[in-house]
Amino acid sequence: MTRHLNKDTTLCMSLAARPSNFGTRFHNFLYDALDLDYLYKAFTTTDLAGAISGVRALGVRGCAISMPFKEQVIPLVDELDASAKAIHSVNTIVNTEGYLKAYNTDYIAIATLLRQYKVDSGLTFVLRGSGGMAKAVACALRDAGFTRGRIIDRDPAKAGRLADLYGFEAGSDSAGLRPQLLINATPLGMAGGGDEQTLAYREEEIAAADIIFDVVALPETTPLINAARTLKKTVITGSEVFAIQAVEQFALYTGVRPSEELFRQAAAWSRQ
Amino acid sequence: MTRHLNKDTTLCMSLAARPSNFGTRFHNFLYDALDLDYLYKAFTTTDLAGAISGVRALGVRGCAISMPFKEQVIPLVDELDASAKAIHSVNTIVNTEGYLKAYNTDYIAIATLLRQYKVDSGLTFVLRGSGGMAKAVACALRDAGFTRGRIIDRDPAKAGRLADLYGFEAGSDSAGLRPQLLINATPLGMAGGGDEQTLAYREEEIAAADIIFDVVALPETTPLINAARTLKKTVITGSEVFAIQAVEQFALYTGVRPSEELFRQAAAWSRQ
Repeated sequence: MTRHLNKDTTLCMSLAARPSNFGTRFHNFLYDALDLDYLYKAFTTTDLAGAISGVRALGVRGCAISMPFKEQVIPLVDELDASAKAIHSVNTIVNTEGYLKAYNTDYIAIATLLRQYKVDSGLTFVLRGSGGMAKAVACALRDAGFTRGRIIDRDPAKAGRLADLYGFEAGSDSAGLRPQLLINATPLGMAGGGDEQTLAYREEEIAAADIIFDVVALPETTPLINAARTLKKTVITGSEVFAIQAVEQFALYTGVRPSEELFRQAAAWSRQ
Repeated sequence: MTRHLNKDTTLCMSLAARPSNFGTRFHNFLYDALDLDYLYKAFTTTDLAGAISGVRALGVRGCAISMPFKEQVIPLVDELDASAKAIHSVNTIVNTEGYLKAYNTDYIAIATLLRQYKVDSGLTFVLRGSGGMAKAVACALRDAGFTRGRIIDRDPAKAGRLADLYGFEAGSDSAGLRPQLLINATPLGMAGGGDEQTLAYREEEIAAADIIFDVVALPETTPLINAARTLKKTVITGSEVFAIQAVEQFALYTGVRPSEELFRQAAAWSRQ
């Protein structure tokens, strides 16, 4: 039923090369549940500048930015929040009367979790991966005061480029380190990724560490998280990252922060 | 409830300096009733070019154009349909994979009604008014083969400019003519216009004519239409113009033509 919509209903949207249904279902579910006069719709485009002109000219309140637009969109906005500036990557634009401010709520979520779990910045870490999420993690670690750690990747050159940005070591494995914090920012363990059963770290590495942080959000419990729980380690999950970043985005657009219970209902509905 | 919306839901919209609620309610009511996976939303803008860039880049299927953008939008589209070219005015844009074709469904509606009522193009007419709707009427009369008529306005210079475009006379009244067709394209008789009780033509002029055409759509029965019906004249109403132009627009966007009964329900809902 769309017949309750009216001229003053506020539009929020997303831009991605290949939109998923998650955002549209997630936000609209919450608008209904919270009785907000908002409307959410995913879009794709082959003309990013034209699309952002439209966001501005039509007063679209919020626009989520996905692959491959997260860096391309930077010159098209008016201001970068510290979260987007830190990693030179945008996933959220807030439009206030034609003024576009860009955020990265993945970075915000990771920084928030490091604080919430009181992860000691004196720990030695290993971060596996060198993509967009690995960059958000590396930057959040640097900004939280971590100095001792190594970024690893099958392609050591990629790991090296990311490590150089934030002043960490790089390599192809964790040889010679005794990392207390292990972070996975690769698709290993991700549902539908082809490596669903692969552990990002060996069991003995997990056993020797204190904290395991997997940024993979689907499934809610990855093989890595399972293994870490079995060994009674502190775990931080990709589901938590996802929840915080999604709620942050929702709050930036609407000023309203859904409860945890409502968030869970919306996320369950959106995965259908 | 917006939670049924998904990434593939098709957006249609409108652009106006001061949007009304009518279009948003009208189209969404029909989408629900006809089970079409569409969504309609009115927008305003201070940057018409940016807004049209957005329509194109986001794949917005249809965009209604209202005051003051009906002429300004012409250089921003790819093609003018004959209906928009005829009066150099656009009220409907259809976007087919980024190609924007512009129409004027007011012109289409007026031309359709002249045909439906088999109005003889040999009749002498008087058309009162010189705004956008008067232009649509004058052009439709010319295109239907009318040659004998006068356009009148409180400001005879305005009437003169419009009359010159389509090869008719101009003046400040109908003196010296015996018009068989009287047309009102001014706000006289319009609800909320301040001249709600004013007849656009004198009773004796109505009595001497055969057909009375009032383009005022609100109220459904204007004082002019009432007077003409009392005198047993053939009447063509603004409600009919509005219905045809709205259904035409709906069909251009969706390919679906709602029944008369459904249209009436949607219009009644939209006026609430």
